[in-house]
Amino acid sequence: MNKLIVKKFGGTSVANAERIEVVAELIVKSVEEGNQVAVVLSAMGESTDELINLSKDINPNPNLREYDALVSTGEQISVALLAMALQKRNIKGKSYTAYQLGIRTNSMHSRARILDVKVDKIKEEISKGIVPVITGFQGMNDEGDITTLGRGGSDTTGVALAVALEAKECQIYTDVDGVFTTDPRLYNKARLLKKITFEEMLELSSMGAKVLQLRAVEYASKYQMPIRVLSSFRAGEGTLIEEEEESMERPIVSGISSIDTEAKLTIRGVPDIPGVAAKILSPVSEAGIDVDVIVQNISADNTTDFTFTVNEEDAEAAEKILLDMSNSFGGGLVEVDRDIAKISIVGRGMRAHAGIASKMFQTLADQEINILMITTSEIKISVVIKRDCMKDAIVCLHDAFDLDKELD
Amino acid sequence: MNKLIVKKFGGTSVANAERIEVVAELIVKSVEEGNQVAVVLSAMGESTDELINLSKDINPNPNLREYDALVSTGEQISVALLAMALQKRNIKGKSYTAYQLGIRTNSMHSRARILDVKVDKIKEEISKGIVPVITGFQGMNDEGDITTLGRGGSDTTGVALAVALEAKECQIYTDVDGVFTTDPRLYNKARLLKKITFEEMLELSSMGAKVLQLRAVEYASKYQMPIRVLSSFRAGEGTLIEEEEESMERPIVSGISSIDTEAKLTIRGVPDIPGVAAKILSPVSEAGIDVDVIVQNISADNTTDFTFTVNEEDAEAAEKILLDMSNSFGGGLVEVDRDIAKISIVGRGMRAHAGIASKMFQTLADQEINILMITTSEIKISVVIKRDCMKDAIVCLHDAFDLDKELD
Repeated sequence: MNKLIVKKFGGTSVANAERIEVVAELIVKSVEEGNQVAVVLSAMGESTDELINLSKDINPNPNLREYDALVSTGEQISVALLAMALQKRNIKGKSYTAYQLGIRTNSMHSRARILDVKVDKIKEEISKGIVPVITGFQGMNDEGDITTLGRGGSDTTGVALAVALEAKECQIYTDVDGVFTTDPRLYNKARLLKKITFEEMLELSSMGAKVLQLRAVEYASKYQMPIRVLSSFRAGEGTLIEEEEESMERPIVSGISSIDTEAKLTIRGVPDIPGVAAKILSPVSEAGIDVDVIVQNISADNTTDFTFTVNEEDAEAAEKILLDMSNSFGGGLVEVDRDIAKISIVGRGMRAHAGIASKMFQTLADQEINILMITTSEIKISVVIKRDCMKDAIVCLHDAFDLDKELD
Repeated sequence: MNKLIVKKFGGTSVANAERIEVVAELIVKSVEEGNQVAVVLSAMGESTDELINLSKDINPNPNLREYDALVSTGEQISVALLAMALQKRNIKGKSYTAYQLGIRTNSMHSRARILDVKVDKIKEEISKGIVPVITGFQGMNDEGDITTLGRGGSDTTGVALAVALEAKECQIYTDVDGVFTTDPRLYNKARLLKKITFEEMLELSSMGAKVLQLRAVEYASKYQMPIRVLSSFRAGEGTLIEEEEESMERPIVSGISSIDTEAKLTIRGVPDIPGVAAKILSPVSEAGIDVDVIVQNISADNTTDFTFTVNEEDAEAAEKILLDMSNSFGGGLVEVDRDIAKISIVGRGMRAHAGIASKMFQTLADQEINILMITTSEIKISVVIKRDCMKDAIVCLHDAFDLDKELD
């Protein structure tokens, strides 16, 4: 039977000596329960930010090879300290940097992708009772340079290691108890989800991004490695994220995500001809601006209104691009609306149940919440509404779909 | 012509962003003067001590492999930052950790010895105008584990790299202007020495230890690599430490070193039989206590008094060992005297000049300074005196041997 678990602890979980002791205890407990454990760590608390500030003092535009060499020290410190804390408890902890282990990446410094992970050596060590403690967030390219995977990359290291080791499960420890039906700060009836599919987790992105890097979810989904999100501060089973099991009874809607940091841009009077959407969005994405919801409607006079949302902080730059474009089209109006929120209901059960969308829209209508935009995917329906209606929308939808009740 | 200089900067020289900028300027200047430069750095200021304190919080007796993995991060930070500072000045700085470069050591964690340094890669890079910036103090053993060379090991890295690169000179930047005839804080007529031999530097250990790790001097001496000790805070040529040139006129005495942190231990009534010195000193050295001056005199009744000095902090432990031993000998008295100082005069010129010792003793006698112990080597004469006479002894000897006057 596979008894190997990869445990990944984030920065808040190893923020200081006391927290590292707590993490060591969690590992001791897991070993005493008969598990084999491999550990992946982030840097301690804010230490990475401190290094970044130090580098900005010296060079505001540092070479990324040097930037990676600098910030990667944070994890090297935390793994050595945890290994010491384990040894104090008579657990054979042993630290590994990414290059010592052999986490090979491409050469995209500061946002590298993992190519492969060598595990022969630590597999043997694990079989001897050693608990390897591995630096997250980083790798080595073929030139022997240190690379980093980008913010939150330690989650990806955890999953990649779990896949390479053929672990039973990858446990991602964080400062929240797991994934909830909606943000508990917005509705106190929010319920911790025991299980959720990779697909749902990806669609619950605005919630998910707070607890788990999406790249890690995609990686886990690709290799069908179960992820468990749980707290290193409080006991609990957390949320298991895994492949869909067809046989299992499932709720129709699993959760509600919300985001109130986007702005909506509309360009009016766009000629309704093929390729116009690409023509509008290409310069936006070339400017490095991520577009979220996109809606286009045909109007009567062979022109169309084109609407999309971006992060609020990108709104001004996107507006400029649209104004330039509008001039080239012959002067259609450009509007920016920052007073919006996006609400999404997500659930695999939607596939088999008709009428979910109409139930959602009716529920919002009953609360006199006006819908500004709608988009749908196979397991998600998103609406854009006025920002001050966001909390009401979450509450009424959470109640309407009985998300506070467990389905057993 | 060899234009390659290895420049090593200590912790105070790179203590913060401003200091790193100053170091970058020193390197720019050297490059502009037509030199090729390779750089070795210590960790920033007190950062290594901070890491050690962090580890003590977690495990007072850490595994040394983990200890080395932890503390080696300090140099990785400083080299990345200096590379960034050089790049800002359009110098192609490139950081290297010891394992990236290939500084192979044995496996004696926390006090490893360098076995070899691979320089093919950086030799090629230096020829392309790149300035490699290399972590001091650390290496990698054959298992791929990070090792450290012990306190001050960065000096040794600098010298080892200079030897491997066949550099013209290894420049050790520190916070003092160079090596002086005696400690300038003890006598204001102390003079900066322009040149000194490796041998003299080794014998001036109590002064030398403050500016330069003795292992580095030994290493440089073995491979005849000239070392220049100079300040990163003030301009100046510093002190060049190099092989003796026979043809050169030399002063008789080069410098006076002093140390007032030792204690003197005496065990009386020791049977005067062969092997007794070893019998007394073996348990002392087995306890990890370094013995400095040793004196043994034969007394009338076939017993002897055996006297030696140790670091003050080891005096109590040494006393215990002697008391145990004294009991086994039949109860000779054990005395500890902490009120001592050791003064040494050092100079290659002594070899060719008789009467140096008597001049030293007479000078001290004229000042009514009583000599408690005497030892001599080929180029050094040391005396142990009362601690409160130390400063007077330095002044009268410095004057007697005309050390304030340059010999040209």
